Amino acid sequence: MTEADLQAFLDREFPEIGPLGIVVERVDARTITVRLPENPATLRPGGTISGPTMFALADVAVYLLILAQIGPVALAVTTSVGMNFMRKPPAGDLLAEAELLKLGRRLAVGHVRLHAVGSDELVADASLTYSIPPRA
Amino acid sequence: MTEADLQAFLDREFPEIGPLGIVVERVDARTITVRLPENPATLRPGGTISGPTMFALADVAVYLLILAQIGPVALAVTTSVGMNFMRKPPAGDLLAEAELLKLGRRLAVGHVRLHAVGSDELVADASLTYSIPPRA
Amino acid sequence: MTEADLQAFLDREFPEIGPLGIVVERVDARTITVRLPENPATLRPGGTISGPTMFALADVAVYLLILAQIGPVALAVTTSVGMNFMRKPPAGDLLAEAELLKLGRRLAVGHVRLHAVGSDELVADASLTYSIPPRA
Amino acid sequence: MTEADLQAFLDREFPEIGPLGIVVERVDARTITVRLPENPATLRPGGTISGPTMFALADVAVYLLILAQIGPVALAVTTSVGMNFMRKPPAGDLLAEAELLKLGRRLAVGHVRLHAVGSDELVADASLTYSIPPRA
Repeated sequence: MTEADLQAFLDREFPEIGPLGIVVERVDARTITVRLPENPATLRPGGTISGPTMFALADVAVYLLILAQIGPVALAVTTSVGMNFMRKPPAGDLLAEAELLKLGRRLAVGHVRLHAVGSDELVADASLTYSIPPRA
Repeated sequence: MTEADLQAFLDREFPEIGPLGIVVERVDARTITVRLPENPATLRPGGTISGPTMFALADVAVYLLILAQIGPVALAVTTSVGMNFMRKPPAGDLLAEAELLKLGRRLAVGHVRLHAVGSDELVADASLTYSIPPRA
Repeated sequence: MTEADLQAFLDREFPEIGPLGIVVERVDARTITVRLPENPATLRPGGTISGPTMFALADVAVYLLILAQIGPVALAVTTSVGMNFMRKPPAGDLLAEAELLKLGRRLAVGHVRLHAVGSDELVADASLTYSIPPRA
Repeated sequence: MTEADLQAFLDREFPEIGPLGIVVERVDARTITVRLPENPATLRPGGTISGPTMFALADVAVYLLILAQIGPVALAVTTSVGMNFMRKPPAGDLLAEAELLKLGRRLAVGHVRLHAVGSDELVADASLTYSIPPRA
């Protein structure tokens, strides 16, 4: 699946996070970058992006990275997540850069790092595991 | 803080999850129950509640449980989360029952279990850690 | 599998943690209690039990709880762990009380709490996921 | 602290994992590599390295990486861990490559990847958080 395929899948299948406006920036066989546009509506007092919003960004990044490999038919489900929130994100768009650590027959694992555009400092990291349905 | 205090705090400070309509059912010194009303708008295809929605529910439950102890002034922030998604939630409201495992000077930890109203089967569990600002 | 069966399995199959002397206290269909005897040799300076020792205790507790249900033939492997270390354990034996949260066809999940004998205060908690091989 | 300083600290302060023979390979301001020599005594049946052994390796790697920055006086303690076990390690030595994600005043976070010497395939990854005592 290409960036455009993944974007279309995201827009169609994840309506409840549609308001976040997440953009698929680029994908290859092992990594993906997605972007969360700055949005005053999702900020907490003090200018922090909420935990659930960052969780959604991390989950979408790894999920699309797996789908890019196994195709949109398969129904992968998140089974476990470990996530650390390390810094308050600065103003501006937030990037999630994910890497596929394992793509097995039954489980896939990805690690994702969140940071602001133009900043090296990590805002959060997460490792997510997905259960993959049996493939024909 | 009472149930009504926590509900008012939630409605005021967490506008971005306001549409979820989370209800503070009851709280005591060590546990809390919050409820996510059924909402067709937040369902994924197949009837599953999305991971970010369940994350938000778990995070709110433990956060309010800590605030009930330390008061609404303190600004606790989530620092790490481990969460397992175990079953597709059945139709109906979802309950989060959280327990305070530690309330230290610097860190607080809670464990939360999500299950449908009227069902013993866990949909998800999570352990969340919060950093607590120095208190006067 | 009974307590004695699990103890024999533990002693036979986990030689590298044999020196810890972990004891299977009791097991039923949903919970298990195992005990780590106090051992000056495993203490860190300051009297703390090491993280890897507590990890081993937590892992053994949930692993044996699963085996008690599916039998000793099946080869379950740990796939993910979220663990929080909350307090320095006091002197004395340490108990791990684990509960089976899910026993699916492919994945099993357990939650375990570590505390000293005679104390309510949690030393650590962990959620562990195991991949279960296909069963005939 | 140099590689030799860290090795001496490890050998002195972590006697209970001394038998593992972990070697500090190299360290810089942001990353560290430590090595677990192959040891038939720590293998599980089937040739798998045990979870607690891999946990110890991951924990040591990030702990030493933090100490290399803040010095050996400070007493950092592990507060939470998320770890995924992805593949059975092949025969041979195991490397842990850790990266410092955050070094704050109160909390430090590192991410570590475990793989066999000469192999790109990850055996495990972990994110670990440490509480850092107040520094003068």
